[in-house]
Amino acid sequence: MKDVQNEHDNRNITIDRVGVKNVSYPITVVQKNNTQQTIANISMSVKLADEFRGTHMSRFIDTLKEYNNKISPDNLKKITARLCEKLGASESSVVFEFPYHFKKLSPVSKIESYSRCDISMTGNFERGNFDYMLGINLNVQTLCPCSKEISDYGAHNQRALINLSVRFFNEPVEFEELINIIENASSSPLHTLLKREDEKFVTEHAYNKPRFVEDVLRELALSLNNDARISWYKIIVESYESIHNHNAFSEIERLKKI
Amino acid sequence: MKDVQNEHDNRNITIDRVGVKNVSYPITVVQKNNTQQTIANISMSVKLADEFRGTHMSRFIDTLKEYNNKISPDNLKKITARLCEKLGASESSVVFEFPYHFKKLSPVSKIESYSRCDISMTGNFERGNFDYMLGINLNVQTLCPCSKEISDYGAHNQRALINLSVRFFNEPVEFEELINIIENASSSPLHTLLKREDEKFVTEHAYNKPRFVEDVLRELALSLNNDARISWYKIIVESYESIHNHNAFSEIERLKKI
Amino acid sequence: MKDVQNEHDNRNITIDRVGVKNVSYPITVVQKNNTQQTIANISMSVKLADEFRGTHMSRFIDTLKEYNNKISPDNLKKITARLCEKLGASESSVVFEFPYHFKKLSPVSKIESYSRCDISMTGNFERGNFDYMLGINLNVQTLCPCSKEISDYGAHNQRALINLSVRFFNEPVEFEELINIIENASSSPLHTLLKREDEKFVTEHAYNKPRFVEDVLRELALSLNNDARISWYKIIVESYESIHNHNAFSEIERLKKI
Amino acid sequence: MKDVQNEHDNRNITIDRVGVKNVSYPITVVQKNNTQQTIANISMSVKLADEFRGTHMSRFIDTLKEYNNKISPDNLKKITARLCEKLGASESSVVFEFPYHFKKLSPVSKIESYSRCDISMTGNFERGNFDYMLGINLNVQTLCPCSKEISDYGAHNQRALINLSVRFFNEPVEFEELINIIENASSSPLHTLLKREDEKFVTEHAYNKPRFVEDVLRELALSLNNDARISWYKIIVESYESIHNHNAFSEIERLKKI
Repeated sequence: MKDVQNEHDNRNITIDRVGVKNVSYPITVVQKNNTQQTIANISMSVKLADEFRGTHMSRFIDTLKEYNNKISPDNLKKITARLCEKLGASESSVVFEFPYHFKKLSPVSKIESYSRCDISMTGNFERGNFDYMLGINLNVQTLCPCSKEISDYGAHNQRALINLSVRFFNEPVEFEELINIIENASSSPLHTLLKREDEKFVTEHAYNKPRFVEDVLRELALSLNNDARISWYKIIVESYESIHNHNAFSEIERLKKI
Repeated sequence: MKDVQNEHDNRNITIDRVGVKNVSYPITVVQKNNTQQTIANISMSVKLADEFRGTHMSRFIDTLKEYNNKISPDNLKKITARLCEKLGASESSVVFEFPYHFKKLSPVSKIESYSRCDISMTGNFERGNFDYMLGINLNVQTLCPCSKEISDYGAHNQRALINLSVRFFNEPVEFEELINIIENASSSPLHTLLKREDEKFVTEHAYNKPRFVEDVLRELALSLNNDARISWYKIIVESYESIHNHNAFSEIERLKKI
Repeated sequence: MKDVQNEHDNRNITIDRVGVKNVSYPITVVQKNNTQQTIANISMSVKLADEFRGTHMSRFIDTLKEYNNKISPDNLKKITARLCEKLGASESSVVFEFPYHFKKLSPVSKIESYSRCDISMTGNFERGNFDYMLGINLNVQTLCPCSKEISDYGAHNQRALINLSVRFFNEPVEFEELINIIENASSSPLHTLLKREDEKFVTEHAYNKPRFVEDVLRELALSLNNDARISWYKIIVESYESIHNHNAFSEIERLKKI
Repeated sequence: MKDVQNEHDNRNITIDRVGVKNVSYPITVVQKNNTQQTIANISMSVKLADEFRGTHMSRFIDTLKEYNNKISPDNLKKITARLCEKLGASESSVVFEFPYHFKKLSPVSKIESYSRCDISMTGNFERGNFDYMLGINLNVQTLCPCSKEISDYGAHNQRALINLSVRFFNEPVEFEELINIIENASSSPLHTLLKREDEKFVTEHAYNKPRFVEDVLRELALSLNNDARISWYKIIVESYESIHNHNAFSEIERLKKI
């Protein structure tokens, strides 16, 4: 059977990335202190040299299977290296996006429930060098400092999405630790289960800690600036304003000097 | 050229609806007191008798063109009647969904800007009878009565989506009038443009008018019960709780007795 | 602390459904012959009597925890009964929606990989009676019989979504068996991993089995009509037409006579 | 009333972008040879100097109104310059995303209908320099060269999304001209209205012009390389594979040397 992908290509154009996207697969996420079963949306790609007409798409799925669907920063390095080898490529990329659930106690009644965030783990392999980036999407609460200041009572507040991407100097930081840093930068974390005494606490706590999207971003940036393990970060804060039908947002990207 | 759709079908199964979905088309929405250009997502279908293998999909688009993309309840009746005729069907349905923008003044500074809602106009034609249903999706603000009551200060509040569907005894009510009724049932309408004096007003107004999703639904239901023009309604209120990562919702459907 | 939800309501309006939506929770789906860990999007609600101002939202999450996040038709019955009890309601509803992965062999090379569908399990409890509905969203391939017939070569084909909802006379049918029935009604099932010999097989197989959305619906309806275990079904077939920017669809709902 | 946003900030962090997102507004898109009414999703932001606590969000909407919602590359330059002025910022950005409809004749019967693409117009203003980027999202058809080659009959084909972003040396190219270039790079354009003779034509045309996502990308890149008006481009091709439940994709970004 003819291998059309393997034909010589005369158009003289190297392609940055060729691969598969939106692959849904059950995975096991492995961190130092815990593992979790979840469902990933996966993208895998390689650089395609100008002399080849196409890549061999089925080998991406083959490679995923070789690692038993176990996903850790170490395995991302192995998978990307293996993709370069199997597909004869000088560069490769993978992105695993998945919901991640963590336990949280309600603030007063101390009842446990699960909270959700969305994690992305991205690996890039380029001529022997591996780059790992971690992304966390987490909803929090923001309460508007201006609304509080100018109003005789009340203050508008709302859900806000914090999207944090980080790179590390050495060892990756566990998700749970970063989630904690993100929640501290907000007016309040969200909770899945709140009894009345908890709701009173959360309401007053947020009122006492008003934060613009600018404040959330700066508080989070300060924490990351002071964290010697973080080499690079990007933050996007997007607040689903309860008085508007549109959102307020702030954005920053910083590479630390060594 | 063979007409495969026209083949006789032996499977003896009448199909409730066959047609096209997700057709994007520029339309002009015509109400008594205004017209508006917008972009519709359109679904059109007919009942398919058991003896035919398939329907003729291109005739749906043909029919749309015949009416110059002008959409009103009257034209919906004409379009559905025409679909039955052109496709030899006893029943037909169309749904036009589109963003609709209306002008609103900020509450204190009286500056004008556009607000958005999402409208759906649904028409069903069945052996000479035409049924028209209007849907409005509108975001509002809700402020939690429990959070206000139990907290020494503050109260959680958030954007909430009100989805109202209505049928009329006679003449359809204009969108703007229904939007007004919906906004009155909430803690506060949303605004696109608010100066500081407006933000103070909206914050305090919502604090003075706390509403559960249950309250919003009941206030809206009361208005519709008392409105002699409305023959049927369905209400879904969904509040994007600012203290949770999930939503609270309420739902009701009522057919009025004549 | 005051119980605002428990206040007497004078508006005299019973609410069909009040509850929580979009709760993300890790669950274990339990069928007779297998169990699977996955992530559910959960909705839970009760009917609210006219005399009460609101429901107690935290009790929905409490109830979920009581059953250790184990989801089966039997547990849905227990959860809905328990909701009525804990919330003093005469009716309750729950919907669990989740991705479900099943193993599939490629048709010629017989290599195994995971395929995904999306399942919804819905339970309604009303004065002692429990109603269970199962929903399956599965993508398949359809190849157009008209395009094949009128063209000298080739035929347009595409991904199509089959949405099947079923109720059972007695025991629920396993997901895998229904998936098999759905795939048989299409031009071809989809595959995550195909080697070249498999791709040849799938291409020719679909060409030999052309199906309109009307055909897929009728073939599936015939199977379900002949299946004595199924008491009710609804089918929606939606084909992402490769020659159009819109979709073709068909829809049927049937209650069987006993 | 206190101006909280105007407070001095001590955290010493300049923010890359602060502003509003997801603003829905009716706009008029103005090109040299035509204008079109449509609905835009708008994002507007400025760089925030480290000494200020926050930006003034209502001024973004004010600025939009000053230009009567007329959107052209020239007006984008004026709007971004005005944002810098009104908000005391050294940099500003705006993005207008909107559906755009263009007329197309069916290939044989020559019947006219509307096709839809999604346009984004992005303007960045930085210390007197204005940068304009145009984005087009357009669906086309791809037919797999490998499937055609190895199969005795048929070939899998599907809808594919082409996302093209371009920058220009001087004058922007009209949308319609770029749409034409994109469609030529595919196996076939999509159509909203096809009679049977047209469907035969499209089916055979696509079969005679098989294209991998790699081919579509390279053909499009060749056209843009040879177009002296284009200074930079990025292409993403994503094919909704009709035999898989996942997508194939290719990506390239090139800055031309002058």
